[in-house]
Amino acid sequence: MALIVQKYGGTSVGSPDRIKNVARKVAKFHAQGHQIVVVVSAMSGETNRLIALAKELTPAPDPRELDVVVSTGEQVTIGLLAMALHAEGIPAKSYTGAQVKILTDDAHTKARILSINDAAIRSDLSEGKVVIVAGFQGVDTEGNITTLGRGGSDTSGVALAAALKADECQIYTDVDGVYTTDPRIVPEARKLDTITFEEMLEMASLGSKVLQIRSVEFAGKYKVKLRVLSSFKEECQGTLITIEESKSMEQPIISGIAFNRDEAKITVQSVPDQPGIAYQILGPVADANIDIDMIIQNSGHNGLTDFSFTVGRSDLDKTINVLDSVKAVINAKGIESDKSLCKVSIVGVGMRSHPGVAAKMFRTLSEEGINIRMISTSEIKISVVIEEKYLELAVRVLHKAFGLGGAG
Amino acid sequence: MALIVQKYGGTSVGSPDRIKNVARKVAKFHAQGHQIVVVVSAMSGETNRLIALAKELTPAPDPRELDVVVSTGEQVTIGLLAMALHAEGIPAKSYTGAQVKILTDDAHTKARILSINDAAIRSDLSEGKVVIVAGFQGVDTEGNITTLGRGGSDTSGVALAAALKADECQIYTDVDGVYTTDPRIVPEARKLDTITFEEMLEMASLGSKVLQIRSVEFAGKYKVKLRVLSSFKEECQGTLITIEESKSMEQPIISGIAFNRDEAKITVQSVPDQPGIAYQILGPVADANIDIDMIIQNSGHNGLTDFSFTVGRSDLDKTINVLDSVKAVINAKGIESDKSLCKVSIVGVGMRSHPGVAAKMFRTLSEEGINIRMISTSEIKISVVIEEKYLELAVRVLHKAFGLGGAG
Repeated sequence: MALIVQKYGGTSVGSPDRIKNVARKVAKFHAQGHQIVVVVSAMSGETNRLIALAKELTPAPDPRELDVVVSTGEQVTIGLLAMALHAEGIPAKSYTGAQVKILTDDAHTKARILSINDAAIRSDLSEGKVVIVAGFQGVDTEGNITTLGRGGSDTSGVALAAALKADECQIYTDVDGVYTTDPRIVPEARKLDTITFEEMLEMASLGSKVLQIRSVEFAGKYKVKLRVLSSFKEECQGTLITIEESKSMEQPIISGIAFNRDEAKITVQSVPDQPGIAYQILGPVADANIDIDMIIQNSGHNGLTDFSFTVGRSDLDKTINVLDSVKAVINAKGIESDKSLCKVSIVGVGMRSHPGVAAKMFRTLSEEGINIRMISTSEIKISVVIEEKYLELAVRVLHKAFGLGGAG
Repeated sequence: MALIVQKYGGTSVGSPDRIKNVARKVAKFHAQGHQIVVVVSAMSGETNRLIALAKELTPAPDPRELDVVVSTGEQVTIGLLAMALHAEGIPAKSYTGAQVKILTDDAHTKARILSINDAAIRSDLSEGKVVIVAGFQGVDTEGNITTLGRGGSDTSGVALAAALKADECQIYTDVDGVYTTDPRIVPEARKLDTITFEEMLEMASLGSKVLQIRSVEFAGKYKVKLRVLSSFKEECQGTLITIEESKSMEQPIISGIAFNRDEAKITVQSVPDQPGIAYQILGPVADANIDIDMIIQNSGHNGLTDFSFTVGRSDLDKTINVLDSVKAVINAKGIESDKSLCKVSIVGVGMRSHPGVAAKMFRTLSEEGINIRMISTSEIKISVVIEEKYLELAVRVLHKAFGLGGAG
């Protein structure tokens, strides 16, 4: 008998029929004697509907009140799922974040969990009840309703699993696990049985479609056994996200290939090569709430250097506007941008012990005539920025070169 | 400066535009220096939508979980109204029933309010904030979300007004007050400036469309000054529901004419005229959750009597089924029913001091050839059951005979 936390996303509970489907799934685990805590998102589309209502009233709704409105989405789902479980003959009880209580800080719309009171849940579980908890929400010390931000239900699930010392946290989604790369680009892409937390974090661009990155960090920190699996396919083990590296002899050097289409590169030309210049350029960009991805600065000539970085393509115009106003201050010669770029990354803990992985990646790309515009590396990841038109080709040839396909 | 509790129903907050309209109304009172607590219902249609979702999962949803689901309707409205007030430049803060906290018993879907903690509301009011409270909901001692039943938002409003010792509780609806009778039947019907609580209770059949009867009882008990007015018409004083009788010299004998179309009369024939017979007949009917209205029992002949009562027409078949199974037990000769009936009532505290009111009513009806089938009286009301086809005629001639029209 295990204690399992199961999290079902918006698509999995998107209609009364799908909620019944979840109830049947939960009932099966319950019948096997497991203790089950279910965390649910709002029915798909509901959160957007509520945000749209708020935006009709004011373009920038007060975050506290937005949380009051948006948190109702998950509250509806917990009640409905409890009813569906009752209809299956399973005792079940729902909890809002406040009822649990999931205590957070007061950063409305992006609150962080401080603590979870597990007393009521443990008591219900010991009575054989399935406990259903509203994801994405909590309550601050003043009793205000808070939300954890988009994708926060994954974090709720992992945090509950950590607080309850659950044997496993299962994240049910509409995909059946983590793949070596996107199967729409490489049909030979293979579902991974396991992946390490570090790799999962580096696979962000793939992984974020599957799992909220913040929940992966949380799971890694609290050593929660996390599994991604499909709520629609039966009898599928999904992908287990592990703390230890696989002990298999056949440990692959790299585990997967991630990519991001919408990259834009900005180069600030001929800026003084002096301390503080990076902050002078990137400070105002960060202040404008623009996420910066890769950053490259070479040593220059004659005390001048070019400073390059990438941002999401939709942020390009905004970024250039910000830089236009700092250009004179930092005495730059000009600002150059390129928005038809993409990023491709190979990820794998195996590369730590295998020299020559970078060389192999660069040779593979050069054999296809693909020019590398930027390079960035970490312990377990090598990323390159290339022209977007080469994205599919690059992913395919790298997938093959590193032996990720089919029988692997 | 007054402390005013304003309650807006589902139609008044039925869309973002209407919520903005409410915000402007509230802002005007706030600008006059009043302290305002606003109680809101769910946006019109929302409660029904949520109940329908629940019914898709199970025909008889668990009441605790139904309350979890249904209470989200008001929670959405409080957040949206707070945003709309912010957009008007008014500081405002929303509260769920649990946040207030409005403590109730644990009778889910029809809970009764036990107490209201006014500390947080008072503190916000003293800071100049408008306080917005979700109607219809509360929380029990265990922290479970409860609802007060349909129309419970009126009760929330009155209960808050009582707890805060508000100067007035204003119920905004889509009508502009209480009328002497339904203007669709009598075009000369006149809006009443005042009506007593007792009269309002007796006007139930008219009043229930305007005000939840339970809230009127509550207001009477706690001496809350209650006013019904339109959320759409400006500059209208509505109808004030008062504790004292009007001191006007021109005090009318009756205040209004109420009616109910859907009456059905049932007569249980020749039952033994002995103690306990009423309970033997009506006990099983009440157990079947059927509301009984008028009850008539005459003394009989030879130890036998006829026992008559009325029920809502939609309950007639169900009632007859129930009686069929008790017929043998009570040894009745037969059961007779008539479903083409209606009830017309004249209501007024003035009739206490004016003999002859009943006689005038009966004469007026007989002059039109309307046969009276049942009569029932209280201190301030006389009701008659007549054939339904005479309803409009009866209401019109009584309205005229008692001088309720136009200039009064």
